Amino acid sequence: SVNPDLASERQTASFCVEKLTALLDGGTEQTRIRRAVVEAIESDPVFSRENQYFQTQNERYEAAVRKAVHLQKKMHEMGWTENGPEYKYIYRALSGDVAFLLHRVFMRSISVLGSDKQIAKWIPLATQHKLIGSYAQTELGHGTYLQGLETTAVFDTATQEFILNTPKISAMKWWPGDMGRSATHTVVFAQLYIHGKCYGIHPFIVQIRSLQDHSLCPGITAGDIGPKMNFEHIDNGYLLLKNVRIPRENMLSKFCEVQPDGTYVRQGSQKINYFTMTTVRISLISDEVLTPLMKACTIAIRYSVVRRQCKLKPGEQEAKILDYQTQQEKLLPQLAAAYAFHFINDYLQELFNRGYREIQRKNFDMLPELHALSSGFKAVITQHCTAGVEICLRACGGHGYSLLSGLPSLYTKILASCIYEGENTILLLQTARFLIKCFMAASAGQPVPPSVTYLAAVKHRKCPAKNKLDFLSPVVYTEAYQHVAVRLTSSTAAKLQDLIQSGVKKHDAWNQCTVQLVQAAKAHCHYIAVKNFAETVEKLETKAGIQKIMKHLCDLFALHGIFSNTGAFLHDGYTSAAQMDMVTASYLDLLAVIRKDAVPLVDAFDFTDKSLNSALGSYDGQVYQRLYEWAQKSPTNQMSPAYERYLKPLLHNTLSKL
Amino acid sequence: SVNPDLASERQTASFCVEKLTALLDGGTEQTRIRRAVVEAIESDPVFSRENQYFQTQNERYEAAVRKAVHLQKKMHEMGWTENGPEYKYIYRALSGDVAFLLHRVFMRSISVLGSDKQIAKWIPLATQHKLIGSYAQTELGHGTYLQGLETTAVFDTATQEFILNTPKISAMKWWPGDMGRSATHTVVFAQLYIHGKCYGIHPFIVQIRSLQDHSLCPGITAGDIGPKMNFEHIDNGYLLLKNVRIPRENMLSKFCEVQPDGTYVRQGSQKINYFTMTTVRISLISDEVLTPLMKACTIAIRYSVVRRQCKLKPGEQEAKILDYQTQQEKLLPQLAAAYAFHFINDYLQELFNRGYREIQRKNFDMLPELHALSSGFKAVITQHCTAGVEICLRACGGHGYSLLSGLPSLYTKILASCIYEGENTILLLQTARFLIKCFMAASAGQPVPPSVTYLAAVKHRKCPAKNKLDFLSPVVYTEAYQHVAVRLTSSTAAKLQDLIQSGVKKHDAWNQCTVQLVQAAKAHCHYIAVKNFAETVEKLETKAGIQKIMKHLCDLFALHGIFSNTGAFLHDGYTSAAQMDMVTASYLDLLAVIRKDAVPLVDAFDFTDKSLNSALGSYDGQVYQRLYEWAQKSPTNQMSPAYERYLKPLLHNTLSKL
Repeated sequence: SVNPDLASERQTASFCVEKLTALLDGGTEQTRIRRAVVEAIESDPVFSRENQYFQTQNERYEAAVRKAVHLQKKMHEMGWTENGPEYKYIYRALSGDVAFLLHRVFMRSISVLGSDKQIAKWIPLATQHKLIGSYAQTELGHGTYLQGLETTAVFDTATQEFILNTPKISAMKWWPGDMGRSATHTVVFAQLYIHGKCYGIHPFIVQIRSLQDHSLCPGITAGDIGPKMNFEHIDNGYLLLKNVRIPRENMLSKFCEVQPDGTYVRQGSQKINYFTMTTVRISLISDEVLTPLMKACTIAIRYSVVRRQCKLKPGEQEAKILDYQTQQEKLLPQLAAAYAFHFINDYLQELFNRGYREIQRKNFDMLPELHALSSGFKAVITQHCTAGVEICLRACGGHGYSLLSGLPSLYTKILASCIYEGENTILLLQTARFLIKCFMAASAGQPVPPSVTYLAAVKHRKCPAKNKLDFLSPVVYTEAYQHVAVRLTSSTAAKLQDLIQSGVKKHDAWNQCTVQLVQAAKAHCHYIAVKNFAETVEKLETKAGIQKIMKHLCDLFALHGIFSNTGAFLHDGYTSAAQMDMVTASYLDLLAVIRKDAVPLVDAFDFTDKSLNSALGSYDGQVYQRLYEWAQKSPTNQMSPAYERYLKPLLHNTLSKL
Repeated sequence: SVNPDLASERQTASFCVEKLTALLDGGTEQTRIRRAVVEAIESDPVFSRENQYFQTQNERYEAAVRKAVHLQKKMHEMGWTENGPEYKYIYRALSGDVAFLLHRVFMRSISVLGSDKQIAKWIPLATQHKLIGSYAQTELGHGTYLQGLETTAVFDTATQEFILNTPKISAMKWWPGDMGRSATHTVVFAQLYIHGKCYGIHPFIVQIRSLQDHSLCPGITAGDIGPKMNFEHIDNGYLLLKNVRIPRENMLSKFCEVQPDGTYVRQGSQKINYFTMTTVRISLISDEVLTPLMKACTIAIRYSVVRRQCKLKPGEQEAKILDYQTQQEKLLPQLAAAYAFHFINDYLQELFNRGYREIQRKNFDMLPELHALSSGFKAVITQHCTAGVEICLRACGGHGYSLLSGLPSLYTKILASCIYEGENTILLLQTARFLIKCFMAASAGQPVPPSVTYLAAVKHRKCPAKNKLDFLSPVVYTEAYQHVAVRLTSSTAAKLQDLIQSGVKKHDAWNQCTVQLVQAAKAHCHYIAVKNFAETVEKLETKAGIQKIMKHLCDLFALHGIFSNTGAFLHDGYTSAAQMDMVTASYLDLLAVIRKDAVPLVDAFDFTDKSLNSALGSYDGQVYQRLYEWAQKSPTNQMSPAYERYLKPLLHNTLSKL
C-alpha cells in the first residue's frame, strides 16, 4: 500500500506522467523497449543488487564478474545484440554494476588504432572472450599529460620485438579497470624508442596473464590498487613491466608503423581517433551523470513528502518537509537541472552525430567546436550533478547518510566523473582556450563556429525587465546569460592581452588568468544550456500539459542560476539591484509552483524500486518499514567476537586477564 | 629521505613553523603535552589504524571496542585522568576511532538531568564500567523536533513503575551510538503519561541487555542500523520497546519528578541544561570539524608540490601542480579558512567559558546570544569545512579518490557534522530568528547583545577603497562584511513585516522568508569570523614573523569570501564593479604570495604520518612508493573465487557448464 502522504502528491499532477516519460525516452516505443529490458534484467536473480550495501570489495568484484559472464548468456537468450535497440538500456538496467567494461575499451582501441590485420586477429578473440582485455594508459605519476608517460617500449631489430619496461615507480600503470585481477591482455601506452631515438607515445598489445591458469606472465607484476570511494566492483589495477618482450606486430599500427629494419612510418590522419576520444566525454553523461542525479532527486523528493518534521502552522500536524521553502530551495533546482541537462544531452548527441557524418566525409571543420563543447559540458554537467546529488543526500538528514538510502553510493560514484575522462578544471581551460581564440577572431571580423557567434553580437546594455513577471520571459533571462558569458570572455581576453603587452610571457599570462578563464567557460556552457532548454520548451507546443510544467522548470533552472550567482549579473550594471530583487521574488514564487508537481516530475523518470535500491525512495513511500527490514539483514547484526573478547571482561571486571 | 620537491618548499619558509605550532596549541607547554600523548598512543600497536581502509564494518567495530577497553588500561598506566591536561588530546590522537563515546553522553545526561540520589547510584557504576550506557533520543521518524517523539512512558501507580512502549514503527529509536551491539543501558526519551494525561518528553534510564550474558532484556528488540557513509566503528542502533517496565526511580528527576501517587512536580530551572546542549555544538568544532579540514589541507598541499603535471613553461620540467593558479585557488582558501576557524573557535570557547561563569551566578542574560552564535557557527563552520575537505579531495585527482589517500574517509566523516547536533538549515534559522529580533529591538532603540550591536550602527554607504591595495586593509573588508550582514538582515526583516502587514499569517510569512533568512545568518557569522581573524592578527604584534603570514591568510580568507559571493557586496552599490575588479586582483595576487609558504603553513598543524594515515600526505612526500606498498596489502590482492567460478569457464569456453 502506498503511503498516503505520497499518494496524495500524485492525485494533483498538472500533467500526464506517462507522456512525460515518453518524451524523456524519445518516444513510446523506446519506453516500451526500455521497460522490457529492465523487466528482463530485474527479474533475473543473478543481477540482483539486493545485498550490495552489505558486501565487501571482494564480494562486489566477484558479483560483477558473475554478472558480466551471465550477461553473455542473457543476451543470447533474449536475442539482444550490441547493435540492437535494447543495448543502451542494458548497462543502465544493471546500474553499471558489472565487470569487463574495459574489455570494451580494449576492443574499441584496437578497432580505432589497429591495422586491418590486427583487427582481424584480435577482435574475434575478444568478442568470443578467449581473452579479457584492459586499457593501460594512466600511470602512478601521470594522468592528463600523455606526453609525460614514462613506460618505455624499445624496438629490438634483432628479434623483431619491443621490450617494455617500467623505468621507475612513477611509471607504473595505475587505475586501469579489469586489470587488477581479471584481464589477460591490455593495451599499454609507452614511449617508443627505435635505435635510441624517442618517437613518443604509442599503443601496444601486451599479454599479462596466462590463458591457461591465469598466472602472471614473465616480467609482469600486477595486482589490484585497493579500496576506493566507490567502484568496489571494479578491479582497478597496477602493472609493472620488466623486460617484457612482445612481437613487432603488437604495436597498434593504423597510424604509425615500425618496419622490420626499424624505419618509422606515419600514415593517415589521426583526427577520427581524436574525435572518438572527444565523443567518450559526451557518451558518459547520460548513464554516469544524469541517471544518478535523477535517481537522487527521486529518492530525496519522495522522502521529503513522507517525512514530517516540526509544525509549519501552530496546532496542525507536523508538516511534510517539502513544504518548507528551504527544502524546496535545496531540491527543486536539482530537479530542474536534471531536466535541463537531459535536454542539452539530447542536443549534444545530435550535434555529435552530425559531426560524425561530416568527419566521415573528411570534413574536420567542426572538430574544434565539438571538442570545446564536449570538454566544457562534461565538466559543467559532472560538477553540477555531483553537487546536486550531494545536496539531495544532505537534504535527507540522517537517513540520507545511511547507505540504505542509496544516496551515499550515488554520490561517491558520480564524484569520480569529475576526475575521469579529463579532470574538470583542465577541460574547462580547453573550452576557455577555444572561447578566447574565437573571441579574438570574431572581434577581428573573422567567421567563428555557430555556438560562439554570440561573442561578436552587440546586445542590450541593460536588462529590460520591469517587474518580476518579466523574468519569466526566456528572452530576458537567456540574454542575461549571454551578456555574462560575453563579458567574462571579453574581460579575460583583455586581461590576457594587457599582461602580454606589459611584458609578461604568454604562458605566465595564461596561468594568471586561469581562474577567470574557468569562469568564462562555465558561463558559456550555462548560457547554452539555458538557451537550449528554452528552445526545447518552445518546441513542445503540441504537448500543452507538458509544455507548461517544462516552462516552469526552465524558468527555475535559469533563475536559480542567476540567484546563486548574482554578482556575475550585477557586475557591470546589466542587471540592477531592483531587478535582482525581482529575480529573487520570481525564483521563490516558482519554488512553490513546482513543489506541487515535484513527485509526478520524479515519477516521470520511471525508475523501478530495484533500480533505485533505496529504502527512502521506493514508489510506495514506506520508508521506515523498509529501513528497519533492511537493517536487520546487515552483517553487523551477527554476533561479534567483541563481546567475549572485550565487553564481557570489561563488564565483569576481569579486564586484567585480557 | 624526503622527496626533494617537498624538501625545497620548507627551505624558504617566511616564518618559524615551531612558533606557529605553539601559537595554535596555545603555548609551548601545550605542544609538549600534546606530542607526549600522541607519542604514547601512536607507539601502542593496539591503537594502530594501519589496516583501517581494508577493514569491514564488523572489523572496525571490533577494533573500536578493543581500543576503548585498552584505553582504560592505558590511561591508568600513563596516569592520565579525565580532568588532566592530556585528556583533550587523547581522542584527537585516536582520530576518534574508539567506542563508548555515547557512554560519556550517558554519564553527562545523568549528571545534568539526574537527582543527587540518581547521580550517586549510576555514575560510579558507569565510571567503573559495570554497565555500558547509551543515549536514545532520535527516532526513525523524529529528529530535530523533540516534542514530536512518539515513544511513551506510562506511569503505573499500582506497581510504581513506568511502562515504556514504541507505539509504531516511526517511534523506534534509531541512530543512538554504542546501542546497536554494546550498550547494556540507555537513557530513553519518551512522552510521559500519568493518569492518561501527557506531560511531554522526559528521560528514563532503561536496561536493554543482561549484565550477565548480554542477551536482550524482556520486551526489548535492538540491533545495529547497518552500513553508513562512515562511522563504521560505531554500532549505531535501533530500539523497540514493548511493555518494558522500569522503577519510578529511573526517571531522571532533577527538574521534574513523579511522586508515588502520580503527582507531577516541576522544580528548578532547566536553563543550565539548555546551556549544556548549546555547548556541545561548540565543543565538536575542534576535533570533528577543524582537525579534518587541517588534515585534508596537509594532505592535498603536500601532494600538490610533489605531483608534477603538464608544463607551465615550454621546455621546462613538468610543473608542480601547486604552481597552477587554479590549484592555488582550490586549496589556499581552504587553508586560510582552517586558520580563520581555528581562531573563531578560540573566541567561542572563551565566550562560552565566560557564559558558564555567568550562568553559575544565575545570570542567564547571555543565553540567547550564545545559542545564536553556537547554532550559526556550528552550521557555517561544518558547512565550510565539509566543502573544503571535498575540494581537497577533488584537487588530488584520481589519487584523492583512493581510500589510501585518507581524503575519502575525512570527507565522509565530516559530512555527518552538517547533520548531527542540529541540522544546519534549522540551526541557521535559529540564528536568523535571533538576528531579526535584535534588529527590531535595535531599530526601536532598545539595547541588544554585544555581537549584534552593529545592526544598529550607521556606517559608510559606499566602500572607500580606491585601489587594489586598499582591499588589504582589514577595516575596509571587515566593514564590507558588516554592511552585507546588516543589509541582508534589514531587508529580510522588511520583507517579513511587509508580508505580515499585507495579511499573510506570521508562520507563512516566516516560511516565505527562510531562504533569505539563512543568507542573513550566514553573513552574520562570516562577518564575525572575518572581524575576529583581523583582531587576532592585530594582537600578534609581538610575533612579527608569524603576524605577517597570518595577515596574508586573513586577507585571503576575507577576499575569497567576497570573490566567491560578489553579488552580496555589489547588490546595493556598496562595492562598485571597479572595486570588485580590485578585489579580484588583490585576491589572485595573494594566492601567489601564500603559495610560497603553503607547505610550512600545513607543517605547523603538526600532524604525524600516523595521524594523517594518508599515502599522499606523509611528511616525506614519498607518495608513489607508499601507494604501491599499501595497495599490495589490500585484501583485493588475495585469490578470488571468481577465477575458478567464472573467468576460467569463460576463457576456456566451458561456460555452458556454469
